[in-house]
Amino acid sequence: MDRVVAHYLVETPRDPADAAASLAGEQSSGTFVAVPGETAELKQRFAARVEEITGLETVDSPSLPGHRGEGSLQRARVSVSWSTENFGHNLPTLVSTVQGNLYELAQFSGLKLLDLDFPDDFAAAFRGPAFGIDGCRELTGVHGRPLIGTIMKPSIGMSPAQTAELAGTLAAAGIDFIKDDELMANPPHSPFDERVDAVMQVLDEHAQRSGKRVMYAFNVSDELDAMQRHYDKVVASGGCCAMISLNSVGLAGAKKICDRGELAIHGHRNGWGMLNRHPLLGIEFPAYQKLWRLAGVDQLHVNGIANKFWEDDDSVVRSIGSCLAAEPLGRPLLPVVSSGQWGGQAPETFRRTGTVDLLYMAGGGIMAHPEGPAAGVRSLQTWWQAAVEGLDFDAATARYPELLASVEKFA
Amino acid sequence: MDRVVAHYLVETPRDPADAAASLAGEQSSGTFVAVPGETAELKQRFAARVEEITGLETVDSPSLPGHRGEGSLQRARVSVSWSTENFGHNLPTLVSTVQGNLYELAQFSGLKLLDLDFPDDFAAAFRGPAFGIDGCRELTGVHGRPLIGTIMKPSIGMSPAQTAELAGTLAAAGIDFIKDDELMANPPHSPFDERVDAVMQVLDEHAQRSGKRVMYAFNVSDELDAMQRHYDKVVASGGCCAMISLNSVGLAGAKKICDRGELAIHGHRNGWGMLNRHPLLGIEFPAYQKLWRLAGVDQLHVNGIANKFWEDDDSVVRSIGSCLAAEPLGRPLLPVVSSGQWGGQAPETFRRTGTVDLLYMAGGGIMAHPEGPAAGVRSLQTWWQAAVEGLDFDAATARYPELLASVEKFA
Repeated sequence: MDRVVAHYLVETPRDPADAAASLAGEQSSGTFVAVPGETAELKQRFAARVEEITGLETVDSPSLPGHRGEGSLQRARVSVSWSTENFGHNLPTLVSTVQGNLYELAQFSGLKLLDLDFPDDFAAAFRGPAFGIDGCRELTGVHGRPLIGTIMKPSIGMSPAQTAELAGTLAAAGIDFIKDDELMANPPHSPFDERVDAVMQVLDEHAQRSGKRVMYAFNVSDELDAMQRHYDKVVASGGCCAMISLNSVGLAGAKKICDRGELAIHGHRNGWGMLNRHPLLGIEFPAYQKLWRLAGVDQLHVNGIANKFWEDDDSVVRSIGSCLAAEPLGRPLLPVVSSGQWGGQAPETFRRTGTVDLLYMAGGGIMAHPEGPAAGVRSLQTWWQAAVEGLDFDAATARYPELLASVEKFA
Repeated sequence: MDRVVAHYLVETPRDPADAAASLAGEQSSGTFVAVPGETAELKQRFAARVEEITGLETVDSPSLPGHRGEGSLQRARVSVSWSTENFGHNLPTLVSTVQGNLYELAQFSGLKLLDLDFPDDFAAAFRGPAFGIDGCRELTGVHGRPLIGTIMKPSIGMSPAQTAELAGTLAAAGIDFIKDDELMANPPHSPFDERVDAVMQVLDEHAQRSGKRVMYAFNVSDELDAMQRHYDKVVASGGCCAMISLNSVGLAGAKKICDRGELAIHGHRNGWGMLNRHPLLGIEFPAYQKLWRLAGVDQLHVNGIANKFWEDDDSVVRSIGSCLAAEPLGRPLLPVVSSGQWGGQAPETFRRTGTVDLLYMAGGGIMAHPEGPAAGVRSLQTWWQAAVEGLDFDAATARYPELLASVEKFA
């Protein structure tokens, strides 16, 4: 049976089985009024089905306002399935089905979409990531270690010439990947085409000199026609990567760009905190990354160990695992590790994830390294070498004393 | 000065002025590293500016997890402005600027975008709603009272012929507006084109017989190319309205469809609870409706008085006011009042909003009326007539005893 299963964490004043039945009803054929031609068979075919309910703890105060009901609140994990016939391969309507009005139901004082399971053949209708991890490694020639990347800073305000100059400095330092900040798209002081021309000239010259091609993720996020023009410009200029602010652009627009398949797509998840920070509202990363994998994103942000944002390490580790999982959903995604990273987190990142299939992003860890950006890039590579050798933080600095400069500056 | 101002409600363990400065820095040029050519003037030009801080109450427990800091938490209203030069008229990048990473900052234990103020000429770069309230009235020929509408139920499972048959029943009952459910887009059992053909034939026949044209909002939500094809089909078939699940489709895709301007766009906000239900996370409706007004939506959901969802009446009243406000942002939006509406809420809705510029949606209030759908539509019109005459609930039923049938059934 071809069914999509959605797993939720819920909190409800009612019996969780009743609440789950309301959920299933609201999001399928449950609110039937009598209609000519309606049959039990029809209802059976399109009804959402409650597959599993696991009771969890009881709490006294509601996580979200506006529920109707008295007394204490029961938390539960609830799994509900829909026939794929309800929405076909229409991603926005899939989202409206498994999320949609659910968050507004007064039967719940908390509801979070945890994960989605798709039938084996569901992904066949989607290309999924055109490049994925292997493709991004081929484009950059980086194997056996994480890609080392950085973000153009200041976020906003640099001219194309300034951006290109900094890109040249970073390329000379040995960087694998550079991205625009999400605040920098196509403003009057840095028109997109001029920025691409200036940056690609510097990176092409670097490639000719060194044989090394740096991947630059140009931020194409914009109105749809403008995104298409920006994409064309990157392709015509010999670039290999475009960045999209996924939540701001949205699923239909982002997928339209991903479907072109000529550039690796760097998926920026700014806005994610709004969707995820509350423990009983929104969506968890395992479900989120599957939607974007189906849409065709190649690289997706996951924060990093000991990041500067609110997210804890367990959540980061789980997100990396989600990106790398061999789901029946097209190629695995390249996890983009960032936020407060300087290399010292590499041993713990590797210990907990066991992978070097990462795009490891550092800003200050490169540009503010006491011995300059080239030493900053080398330091990150050495931290990762030590991590892969199984060294912990202290053992790494003992074997590679050159790491101490970064420890003194950033730890 | 051309600046966009964003107003936030925040909760922070720090001095709100410090926290606001972090917010402004994170979302503009504040995290400057030394860059060749950087000048104080450049920084001044692109920096976000804290415009106003109003301290509110202090609380002991954080609204969201993951903040860094000790002790009690201060709530405040904070207004921050950006030069429009930072993002131009690029809506997705505007969203990444005023929302984006903000929700992940550990300096806050709560952050909600309350409203946005745009410079007077900002909207000139956008068409905005192609029809708005006046256009929707012209398309339906309804003046001086709310448009009365309903949703096709069951949500999912009906064939095109069944959908058309029910549309015919509703048209005969005198309905002004019908919409697909957001779960019904283009599934195998009701292919979009077949549904449009079947429904439009019935509605065209009705128009020829009665002179009255019913507005049917076909749910075009889908991948972008499919949305374009669905839109073409509606135009070619003489339809006048398309529905988009705004949050599921996203800003770039929805705007691309809105920009065509040949159909009124019914904006469904399913998924809204995820963005709004928590008092200190996400976005409030006044900001949300401005983004969608710029994108070109004509009709936008606002729930209704005494709705079946979690939202309270004050919030609904404020949302209606937001849609109708004569902002410098193109035409006002037609508020779509729905969720548990049967007519009895009309006096209170009118008392609190003073407007009949509404699309008033009822499902059961029409189909389950004891005297049939035509009596259901008449009942809703009579409730609104009573409301406009200034009658309260009891006075309405006293002057119009025919309303008692609805009271007995639904109150």
